[in-house]
Amino acid sequence: MVAERAATDAGRVRQRNLAAVLRLVHESRGVTRADLTRALGLNRSTIGDLVGVLVEHGWVDERDDGQRSGVGRPSPLVITRDQWLVAAINPELDVIDIALVSLGGEIVARRRTAVDRPGVAEVVAIVARVVRELSAAHPEAQVLGAGVAVPGLVRRDDGYVRLAPRLGWSDEPLAAPLAFALDMPVAAANDAHLGSRAELTFGAGQGAASVLYLNGGPSGIGGGLVIDGHPVDGSAGYAGEIGHVSVDPRGALCACGAHGCLEALVRRDALSAAVDLSHPDDDELDAALQSAVALEGSEGPVGAILSEQLGWLAIALRSAVNLLNPERIVLGGHLAALWRAVGEHDRHTVLAEALPVTARDVRIEVAALGAQRLLIGAAELAWDALIADPTEVPLRPIAP
Amino acid sequence: MVAERAATDAGRVRQRNLAAVLRLVHESRGVTRADLTRALGLNRSTIGDLVGVLVEHGWVDERDDGQRSGVGRPSPLVITRDQWLVAAINPELDVIDIALVSLGGEIVARRRTAVDRPGVAEVVAIVARVVRELSAAHPEAQVLGAGVAVPGLVRRDDGYVRLAPRLGWSDEPLAAPLAFALDMPVAAANDAHLGSRAELTFGAGQGAASVLYLNGGPSGIGGGLVIDGHPVDGSAGYAGEIGHVSVDPRGALCACGAHGCLEALVRRDALSAAVDLSHPDDDELDAALQSAVALEGSEGPVGAILSEQLGWLAIALRSAVNLLNPERIVLGGHLAALWRAVGEHDRHTVLAEALPVTARDVRIEVAALGAQRLLIGAAELAWDALIADPTEVPLRPIAP
Repeated sequence: MVAERAATDAGRVRQRNLAAVLRLVHESRGVTRADLTRALGLNRSTIGDLVGVLVEHGWVDERDDGQRSGVGRPSPLVITRDQWLVAAINPELDVIDIALVSLGGEIVARRRTAVDRPGVAEVVAIVARVVRELSAAHPEAQVLGAGVAVPGLVRRDDGYVRLAPRLGWSDEPLAAPLAFALDMPVAAANDAHLGSRAELTFGAGQGAASVLYLNGGPSGIGGGLVIDGHPVDGSAGYAGEIGHVSVDPRGALCACGAHGCLEALVRRDALSAAVDLSHPDDDELDAALQSAVALEGSEGPVGAILSEQLGWLAIALRSAVNLLNPERIVLGGHLAALWRAVGEHDRHTVLAEALPVTARDVRIEVAALGAQRLLIGAAELAWDALIADPTEVPLRPIAP
Repeated sequence: MVAERAATDAGRVRQRNLAAVLRLVHESRGVTRADLTRALGLNRSTIGDLVGVLVEHGWVDERDDGQRSGVGRPSPLVITRDQWLVAAINPELDVIDIALVSLGGEIVARRRTAVDRPGVAEVVAIVARVVRELSAAHPEAQVLGAGVAVPGLVRRDDGYVRLAPRLGWSDEPLAAPLAFALDMPVAAANDAHLGSRAELTFGAGQGAASVLYLNGGPSGIGGGLVIDGHPVDGSAGYAGEIGHVSVDPRGALCACGAHGCLEALVRRDALSAAVDLSHPDDDELDAALQSAVALEGSEGPVGAILSEQLGWLAIALRSAVNLLNPERIVLGGHLAALWRAVGEHDRHTVLAEALPVTARDVRIEVAALGAQRLLIGAAELAWDALIADPTEVPLRPIAP
């Protein structure tokens, strides 16, 4: 009995180590055994055993063309394998975006299906059909789980959608019916949070331990937060709503009912109107703002609007930077377009009022993953559960 | 060689488990073996072995009057022992507050030494003398490390004081000379951060995984942040400066150079002046505000000042709550006095403009540890390093 329990303890340690190795391979998209040994503080033979188990369970392959470590033999390179996939889903007002994503966060297949303000039942039916079709096109692989990026507030524990105003959803148990229809575990979370995770892991946040991510989309400004390497969900899953940080108590009424929130003052439609566009996508807005500034200089009428918008953004960033002392700020969507279009001088003013010690080392970057970030982030949700227990996969590998 | 390395891995796992047990005993000030088994997911015999090692190294004792777990024998209660102590130090403008603190965060001895704007050398000399004298009065115990709560910005890695305006210190390597003088490891951090840690672990934040702590002191409003059970330092150690969250871009100039920071608008001196006091301590201010409101009702002139001050506080809390979705907010110092003096109606308005889903479950509490919180927090800093490696103590216990 005691021996059996001791075996359970040892099993738990082994599972944790397997998960740590697999996460590193996932995030680095390929890493040498020597780097795994260094990063995890385990010895070479333990790492060799763990990698062996992951190979056996179809997660990774080893290649011998890794870098030479010291004077010994070259250290084998451990790379991801595409045998296990996850489905990533992003339902929107006019389109349901669905992809199969491999370990390492790369999109293997993707399909966008046009819809018109779909209800949950319609989303479930479309997702079930598309995932089946995409899977059929990849018989060498198997889809083990799914993640959903929802434009709204989602309860962390059970993927229940509290409120998704743009879709007109409130109090919809999204993850449960999807899991039933797909016959696999499904997790759901806020789209901006997931965009943040994707940018952190594979994009502009890579390598930074604490990142504040702000994304400007058609429905407002969402955000995500990573602190000491961990995504911050908040106590009920609603953290990161930097769009509702106060920038002016006497400012315009926000959709949330308060006055002067960041998203009520820094507006995508104000930027679009400045360059005579209606509903541009991120790339169109970005290009139009940059050509307008190139044409009329930063002192022209478009430049004046940019400076004013940047001034409001600066107040929210100052509050957040003083509160959180992050290492990096990542701007996405129309905030990235704003940042790229303003001049170097304006950029330098943006943290001028933050506490100097905290502002000094903050790097501001624009998002790197573009429109793929929400799907890659949704896939991360699904990977979380799978990576946590790598031996819980079908026992007979599909392909040799 | 391989066997030796495997032994190192096993040793690392054992050290981590010892630290986890000791931390739980520390934070709970006594816990049954059954609770340790449940909390850590290890089996009974492993827990028994780990507790045995901690007893042997003088950290804990076992008592047999623990609660009965199920049908079996009563589960032994593991309690803290006062053999190992740490020194906690809080240098201020007019006093250096020094204590010896036991495992479980209890103050064993304390001495306040009057000073007048001391320099670092004077602080070091006084601390060395007082710690020696307090230690001599406790021959049954041994002081193993020290922590310092500094009213200023402190670099996390090496306890270097970047700026402590009230003390007139800038760029002072505080921890290093103190460690030399005391001949023990010394860590230092911002006083508000440490107050926050103490309140989280042993006070009003106990049991909450994410806490935002705001402390109003004579020099402004400091703060601390705990997310998912971990104190947030920020990338360079300066997180938590909620006193410098913007509440009104057109507001009064703040000492930091920006306009309309929380601490520029919610002012201890405004509250003190309302009740005709100059430089009251927290308890005096608290009592005076409450009697004024009792006397003149919440609609009187003091009530009007309280409402206005609470309105500014509400803007900062809304920004922080929307960004972080914390489980609890803890108010200390003059913010606690303000909170206790305002009426129930005013309290309900304070998060009325925050996003309803995030505001709904936030509890606002006043700090519970009073003036001891900074010393207890400073002690936590010292315990961190000791608890991380419980077998690194002098081999021969001092007392049986």
